[in-house]
Amino acid sequence: MMKKIPVKLRERSYQIMVGAHLENLGSAFKPLALGKKVMVVTNPKVGGLYFSAVEKSLAAAGFQVSQTVIPAGEKYKAQSAAHRIYRQCTKNGFDRQSTIVALGGGVIGDLAGFAAATFLRGINFVQAPTTLLAQVDASIGGKVGINLPVGKNLVGAFYQPRLVFIDLHTLKTLPEKEFSNGLAEVIKYGVIYDENLFSFIEENSGKISHRENAVLEKIISRCCEIKALVVSRDEREANVRAILNFGHTLGHALEGLTAYKKYTHGEAVAIGMVGAMKIANSLELVDSSAEQRLKKVLLKAGLPVYIKEETIYWGRFLEFLKRDKKVLNEKMRFVLPLEIGRVEIVDEVPLEIIRDALGALYEK
Amino acid sequence: MMKKIPVKLRERSYQIMVGAHLENLGSAFKPLALGKKVMVVTNPKVGGLYFSAVEKSLAAAGFQVSQTVIPAGEKYKAQSAAHRIYRQCTKNGFDRQSTIVALGGGVIGDLAGFAAATFLRGINFVQAPTTLLAQVDASIGGKVGINLPVGKNLVGAFYQPRLVFIDLHTLKTLPEKEFSNGLAEVIKYGVIYDENLFSFIEENSGKISHRENAVLEKIISRCCEIKALVVSRDEREANVRAILNFGHTLGHALEGLTAYKKYTHGEAVAIGMVGAMKIANSLELVDSSAEQRLKKVLLKAGLPVYIKEETIYWGRFLEFLKRDKKVLNEKMRFVLPLEIGRVEIVDEVPLEIIRDALGALYEK
Repeated sequence: MMKKIPVKLRERSYQIMVGAHLENLGSAFKPLALGKKVMVVTNPKVGGLYFSAVEKSLAAAGFQVSQTVIPAGEKYKAQSAAHRIYRQCTKNGFDRQSTIVALGGGVIGDLAGFAAATFLRGINFVQAPTTLLAQVDASIGGKVGINLPVGKNLVGAFYQPRLVFIDLHTLKTLPEKEFSNGLAEVIKYGVIYDENLFSFIEENSGKISHRENAVLEKIISRCCEIKALVVSRDEREANVRAILNFGHTLGHALEGLTAYKKYTHGEAVAIGMVGAMKIANSLELVDSSAEQRLKKVLLKAGLPVYIKEETIYWGRFLEFLKRDKKVLNEKMRFVLPLEIGRVEIVDEVPLEIIRDALGALYEK
Repeated sequence: MMKKIPVKLRERSYQIMVGAHLENLGSAFKPLALGKKVMVVTNPKVGGLYFSAVEKSLAAAGFQVSQTVIPAGEKYKAQSAAHRIYRQCTKNGFDRQSTIVALGGGVIGDLAGFAAATFLRGINFVQAPTTLLAQVDASIGGKVGINLPVGKNLVGAFYQPRLVFIDLHTLKTLPEKEFSNGLAEVIKYGVIYDENLFSFIEENSGKISHRENAVLEKIISRCCEIKALVVSRDEREANVRAILNFGHTLGHALEGLTAYKKYTHGEAVAIGMVGAMKIANSLELVDSSAEQRLKKVLLKAGLPVYIKEETIYWGRFLEFLKRDKKVLNEKMRFVLPLEIGRVEIVDEVPLEIIRDALGALYEK
């Protein structure tokens, strides 16, 4: 049973279709008045599994379909891969009505989206996310971009897709680690916005682990609704959208400090959320029972709640914190919970409190 | 006497200041609530002439100013130069409130604007155009971008500056050829939108050639007003903004066909405008007196009205026409004059008529 969730952004509005089937992508394209040419950007594994179904569906709907396969991995979210997409677009005679479809996870979505945002100053873009993380987070809201050698996501754009098309069946082929990776963001939505969602996750952890379709559809729909609401209120992250970064400030620093090798994004965000809870607790914004509930849910989702490193030097950690885009005029900003289901953006958090929270993130 | 022209684009609105002085750039920055860090992107010649004045003014207003000098020339409007700007931004610890100032002509404006549009998904951007072409055209309206090896302006964005700051004194140091280059666009505004402007140019060709300040200010202000009006009505070139491409369809093809070596942009557009006149005349949209008036004004501005090439092969010309971004679903679209001061966007112009117009662009 497909659910349509609107993302309301005036002339850039679009729908998220949750529970759709890739076999029906062609029909979903029809009302969008897209040009005839479509390029699917994907990686070898996802392309191998799903491209032929996508191609068949689009061809049946009258589109000319080509495919660009980018090797898997974060290191291909780079200018060189964007140029490869540009070259293919040129070769295929793309005009402003042509469409790029991102079929894959966050790397493919961010990269293909950045290419779509910038080729001919912007062509049509459709997200067909195939990982849980991309389905509940990366594919919605228009953040696209690439990495620079000096840092991740330093180059990009806010560029909205014309459609987000989520086929839950693609989760069946997702590795365990990737699934947990997405669950960190699912849990995040509960903490920042919806105590009911959080309770539902607490109560259904077994069914979630078994990836039961009805439960997944319910959870993913709700996450998409929350993201759509937040993004509609603040497309370019001037204020309220920043709440989506809960757990990400410490998480990004942890990823950066370990050269993106030790933690998945979800693992780093899980630890980052626990850290933010500790900071909020030190500032007497939230009581400690919230941290206990959060840790329990994270552990059931197969996510860590402690730092795995032997030693993290505070000086280097601080360096990474400062490098984060959430640093405004050299001041430290954090998204902190007030209770499960509600957060606040707090400017100028004292550095000692952050350091103490980091220290408390080691397993005793 | 400074004139302020508003560009109305809701939350992306900004002002064009015509007749301002670079010595006062710092004061103009104050009401914009920009961060402390400013990077001026310029080329060796323009930077040598004007950077110190800009730096002094910005420093006096409390900004931290750095400079990135990009070698002169279209070939530096490329990904490699954008990456150089990104690296400088990172090195200087730029955050989302930081500002890039483009001090130079169209190449600098397009390149610096693209870097500003994409670094951290968009930082503040200010245009300080120093060529006539950039002052009346490239700096207004938010088209930014870079070239690919396979074609010009294939990668870019629509990204509005926070301010366009035009110091007319910079025109005093502009080479003759560059000045004519800009006059082609000035004349274009007369043809597409304002018979009064066109007549004023006809009547004041001597004063224009001598770059008399009062006349330049009047003309440049009017061109900026027209561009601001058109852009406000259609930011992303969905419809009416396309009239600004008058003369550019044939012009771009001519530039491309001669590898951008034989004609300046203005020269190519001048010939392109005459060609569009001929096409409109063949289609009985305009009478031939308009073509005569146009040619006379172009010649007085030091611009060509005939193709210089010995032979242009129609097949190759057509190939370039098709490559142009104005080709929609393989149909040929032209902006054609109905009279001096009024144009129309005509879809599906027959190819024979374009071919005949091209043939008539050779001096008899």
